[in-house]
Amino acid sequence: MLKMAIMGAGSIANKMAATITKMNDVEAYAIAARDAGRAAAFAEKYGFAKSYGSYEEMLKDPEVQLVYIATPHSHHYKCTKMCLEAGKHVLCEKAFTVNAEQAKEILKQAEDKKLLLTEAIWTRYMPSRNIINKLIADGTIGEVTSLTANLGYELSEVKRIWDTQLAGGALLDVGVYLVNFASMVFGKDLEHVQSEAVFKNGVDMIDNINMTFAGGKTASMQCNVHAVQNRQGTIFGTKGYIEITNINNPEKIKVFNDQYEEVLCCTPPEQITGYEYEVEACCKAIEEGRLECPEMPHKETIRVMEIMDEMRRSWGYEISTMK
Amino acid sequence: MLKMAIMGAGSIANKMAATITKMNDVEAYAIAARDAGRAAAFAEKYGFAKSYGSYEEMLKDPEVQLVYIATPHSHHYKCTKMCLEAGKHVLCEKAFTVNAEQAKEILKQAEDKKLLLTEAIWTRYMPSRNIINKLIADGTIGEVTSLTANLGYELSEVKRIWDTQLAGGALLDVGVYLVNFASMVFGKDLEHVQSEAVFKNGVDMIDNINMTFAGGKTASMQCNVHAVQNRQGTIFGTKGYIEITNINNPEKIKVFNDQYEEVLCCTPPEQITGYEYEVEACCKAIEEGRLECPEMPHKETIRVMEIMDEMRRSWGYEISTMK
Repeated sequence: MLKMAIMGAGSIANKMAATITKMNDVEAYAIAARDAGRAAAFAEKYGFAKSYGSYEEMLKDPEVQLVYIATPHSHHYKCTKMCLEAGKHVLCEKAFTVNAEQAKEILKQAEDKKLLLTEAIWTRYMPSRNIINKLIADGTIGEVTSLTANLGYELSEVKRIWDTQLAGGALLDVGVYLVNFASMVFGKDLEHVQSEAVFKNGVDMIDNINMTFAGGKTASMQCNVHAVQNRQGTIFGTKGYIEITNINNPEKIKVFNDQYEEVLCCTPPEQITGYEYEVEACCKAIEEGRLECPEMPHKETIRVMEIMDEMRRSWGYEISTMK
Repeated sequence: MLKMAIMGAGSIANKMAATITKMNDVEAYAIAARDAGRAAAFAEKYGFAKSYGSYEEMLKDPEVQLVYIATPHSHHYKCTKMCLEAGKHVLCEKAFTVNAEQAKEILKQAEDKKLLLTEAIWTRYMPSRNIINKLIADGTIGEVTSLTANLGYELSEVKRIWDTQLAGGALLDVGVYLVNFASMVFGKDLEHVQSEAVFKNGVDMIDNINMTFAGGKTASMQCNVHAVQNRQGTIFGTKGYIEITNINNPEKIKVFNDQYEEVLCCTPPEQITGYEYEVEACCKAIEEGRLECPEMPHKETIRVMEIMDEMRRSWGYEISTMK
């Protein structure tokens, strides 16, 4: 059984801990935080065997095989590099890095080191993805021509979001799900991206994102870090449409016909938190000796980062990088 | 009681006839179509006193006071001009004209002639508008920061939509409702419009429209003439959101809190078809000697046309005008 460690002890680390302690594929082995007391309390809470007051110390532990990086995205590049240098496989939270350049560098490093490195963009690994793909492939809603989606939370109190030093803004935090959602439905042959952002305190607060793919399939999407959004994704076809309740963690996938009548309602299987799928994918890939997960290939991670880089460039928003 | 005539005998004319025959404010008096037999059958069907086989003939009838123009939007400019020259008040279907230049010209003509001329963009006159405004003003969903909306139908079989000679495309047919929806919610201080269109057979088939208003309030919207859309509008605030089922004829207006729980559901009052509100507004304006309806002032009609002109210009789509 693979021994897993978590780097960072924030809320997302807690969610991952609550997940892996219930899984059979991995052992919830170690936690590392910059504060030893905090790390110890975390280990105690979830029954982890080891706790470390520094990332370096944890990475020296030869037992650790896979590290889940749960630090802010401004730190992903640096943290991942450290893990790879220590010979650990890595599951790194989204947004993967701050820009495509960083992503390419660490993905190259992982390939050179023959280690697994994959982006923890959980929606790519979830069963909902196959449910949606199958509904589309079955022709349930005819020919699909467009989609809309939104994702947003009232995050005024979350300081990280408003901190340019921590690569704040809506795009890297929530917008990344929109880019992934449209890409999962329409594929990788993106023809055109158009976007604009409303800025507040120097960071993008609301982003309107239009993406047009091969064959004229087009997406109109919005993310927001200063409002409660219904997180709905809707895929429109010539015979009906598919409504996804919460594109960030699909709860219901409903199909409507051209009379606006609900004709089908799919509920994804019960899950621990939804994080288990990305961890399972890591275990499987490592077992099979793969350096990437087929659910989120390296080139997809890079492509998504490049799309987001291009958007920010068009807004004149430069994020400082930490190396 | 105001004697009303309908110009054109297509499906929208039928809907208007079914409306005004049930109203007390107006007399469903005359129908004019280019085919006398068709006009007579229409008059017979709805119990109209008069039918005319030409628009000119109908306009010579001194009894006709208000004309509802139900021809394709490529013909609105010409038809309205004829009515005004004949001294008739006019309720003209949306999109009001093909471009702002045409709109300005006929609105000026109406003012010179001291006649009422107003755009039949029914959502502006509906009670749902006040319900939505009140929910926002009451702070039910906190500070409103953004909205999303879509409107689309599978109209492959409707030839007019795909005919550049008839000013085809999604924008003038369905997109106009999106521009009006965002404007009704966020006001007239538009700061920026960004849009792109997917073209098919020379006309815009799907439009992604972003509109940003004063104070950074922003809308992300999509219209489509080649898919069934759920026609949903959602207004997002810091404490919750408002979901409008069918922005083209609001059926339900639901409020959700920040836990995604439905806390309120408003149903607009029962209606004949929904067209009665624009007709009532005309009757009231004419009675009060006004030249415009406060629900849709002339400058708003021009503003909306200018916004749509600008969008088409950015796509390089020129619509030929009939004068």
